[in-house]
Amino acid sequence: MVLPEKVNLRVAVNGAAMFEYLTIGRMNGHTLRVLQVENRTLDFHTHETSDELFYVMEGAFSIEFEEGAVSLNAGDMLIIPKGIRHRPVVTECVKCLLIELDGTLDAGNTGGGIVT
Amino acid sequence: MVLPEKVNLRVAVNGAAMFEYLTIGRMNGHTLRVLQVENRTLDFHTHETSDELFYVMEGAFSIEFEEGAVSLNAGDMLIIPKGIRHRPVVTECVKCLLIELDGTLDAGNTGGGIVT
Repeated sequence: MVLPEKVNLRVAVNGAAMFEYLTIGRMNGHTLRVLQVENRTLDFHTHETSDELFYVMEGAFSIEFEEGAVSLNAGDMLIIPKGIRHRPVVTECVKCLLIELDGTLDAGNTGGGIVT
Repeated sequence: MVLPEKVNLRVAVNGAAMFEYLTIGRMNGHTLRVLQVENRTLDFHTHETSDELFYVMEGAFSIEFEEGAVSLNAGDMLIIPKGIRHRPVVTECVKCLLIELDGTLDAGNTGGGIVT
């Protein structure tokens, strides 16, 4: 067996291009990606089949829902249940980790970010 | 709809008792737990049905496999594929996040830690 490889999240996200959803691992049918992004508001969208996890490594941003918004700061984690309309609103530079079921992210829900 | 609640990982883990696997969220059939632990080496064990994710928030420890060990430091993430025998070896105080499929952790693979 080849030993599993560790990933340092901060090193990984600093190696991603701006707006690149960079895959850093897989687990149980989920893809883990790191992302750095700034000055971007996505359209409202819904992931019908997957919950979505955000973990903020650096910076702060909000996720808006139809009924209000949740403000996230470094160290915060938020799990958005499947089927809930939402949109990230990012002004300053944010570095974060995302986890969703494989195939959840596409050009329609990433604001044109590169999904790798 | 009630807005999803964010969790600050550092605040959450500092609120866990030593050796308590404290549940902080669920996503797609997985349980997310935080844990602080020190001076504990678990028996070798295998999770047959779930990959297992470790993310180190504070401290350093090793995960041993039959073929070698991986040393983890703060900020490191490791995903152990299902079916791979392993054991965590912890000396200093470590604070970490764990993710596995619901029902993966039990008294036989947590060294008697409290699974909540």
